[in-house]
Amino acid sequence: MAAAIDAIGECEEAVTACAAAMVGEDDVRVLQDAIVRDLNCADVVAATRRVLSRGSDAALLSAQLEACVLACEHSAELCARHAHHHEHCRMCSQATLRCAEACRQVLHGLHG
Amino acid sequence: MAAAIDAIGECEEAVTACAAAMVGEDDVRVLQDAIVRDLNCADVVAATRRVLSRGSDAALLSAQLEACVLACEHSAELCARHAHHHEHCRMCSQATLRCAEACRQVLHGLHG
Amino acid sequence: MAAAIDAIGECEEAVTACAAAMVGEDDVRVLQDAIVRDLNCADVVAATRRVLSRGSDAALLSAQLEACVLACEHSAELCARHAHHHEHCRMCSQATLRCAEACRQVLHGLHG
Amino acid sequence: MAAAIDAIGECEEAVTACAAAMVGEDDVRVLQDAIVRDLNCADVVAATRRVLSRGSDAALLSAQLEACVLACEHSAELCARHAHHHEHCRMCSQATLRCAEACRQVLHGLHG
Repeated sequence: MAAAIDAIGECEEAVTACAAAMVGEDDVRVLQDAIVRDLNCADVVAATRRVLSRGSDAALLSAQLEACVLACEHSAELCARHAHHHEHCRMCSQATLRCAEACRQVLHGLHG
Repeated sequence: MAAAIDAIGECEEAVTACAAAMVGEDDVRVLQDAIVRDLNCADVVAATRRVLSRGSDAALLSAQLEACVLACEHSAELCARHAHHHEHCRMCSQATLRCAEACRQVLHGLHG
Repeated sequence: MAAAIDAIGECEEAVTACAAAMVGEDDVRVLQDAIVRDLNCADVVAATRRVLSRGSDAALLSAQLEACVLACEHSAELCARHAHHHEHCRMCSQATLRCAEACRQVLHGLHG
Repeated sequence: MAAAIDAIGECEEAVTACAAAMVGEDDVRVLQDAIVRDLNCADVVAATRRVLSRGSDAALLSAQLEACVLACEHSAELCARHAHHHEHCRMCSQATLRCAEACRQVLHGLHG
């Protein structure tokens, strides 16, 4: 669980910084969907971390983790396409994939 | 959707104020679980509102709304028990139930 | 104070929706700074609303309200420039100015 | 700046977990003010981290960092009193003091 909390924290930081960096890029017009996905991801992972840190209400945590995995995967999917020419997208797609995996492991522990 | 955004905003406000008020009550020891549920609810609804406001990624929105409904119902369940002697719990349980209903209607629209 | 909480809630909603809408505009490249200011504003006002709702720690509230007024003014300044051709910028600049004014009134009450 | 972002992330995690743990303690009634300060601190540091991550608008960042330092100091002040009998308060007061110091250094860099 501590590993998941760390992964979520790094993910929130990466998507927040990446979204702001994409907004400032010359090719921002092809990054529009990726930006919105990063913004959504930042908010969803932040809420997930709070619920996880409080350590109660497993049913809510489970539903919130499902949303979190989706938010991370959707963000990673688009940023991965821009990873070869934007370093922040490469870092962001890695952080979101790590976060998704960490959340899946917590989910597995909850249901296992 | 505008109705849902309003209901979520009122819910976030009600659970945040109610949690802080419960922390200050003489009978805080019987309110412990209700406080944590309100804190979780505040964070989950806030993230849901952001995703909803951005108006894209229906799959993520759907998963986040599912978590939101659960957060509201869990919060309402415990605050309703204290509604007869704490006005903030009464207002909070009403706001969370309205929010849950508004989110279910958005979900219905997404899947219908 | 209830008026300020409402104004902050409407402001958070307006800047969040406006930022996402600007990201999707054809002229996104001239909106880059306005987008980041809206994103900053959304986060600062959300934190301010939480502190205000809890109703304690006047020194912290005062400092947070100062930051909030600045965030709103900075957001309004840039969105106002785009208000004539983007309806969401017009609504956003109005909501941020109302929020700044509401926060200044709370500040005045704290220090008066 | 990366150090400050890390310190803020650890602080948000510590105050969120500590607040939830205090709510569950037998002596919750003497912890009431400390809980609200931790909750305020969590929200203020989270907003500060977002603004810092986006790396623009130094005037807003400065005001938000001032509020952040205050939030951390106020939280640390009360949790330190309970550090000898609650491990989460000890960890929390350390994390908030480290965060306050990291933010002061960023402020010094902005104004220096």
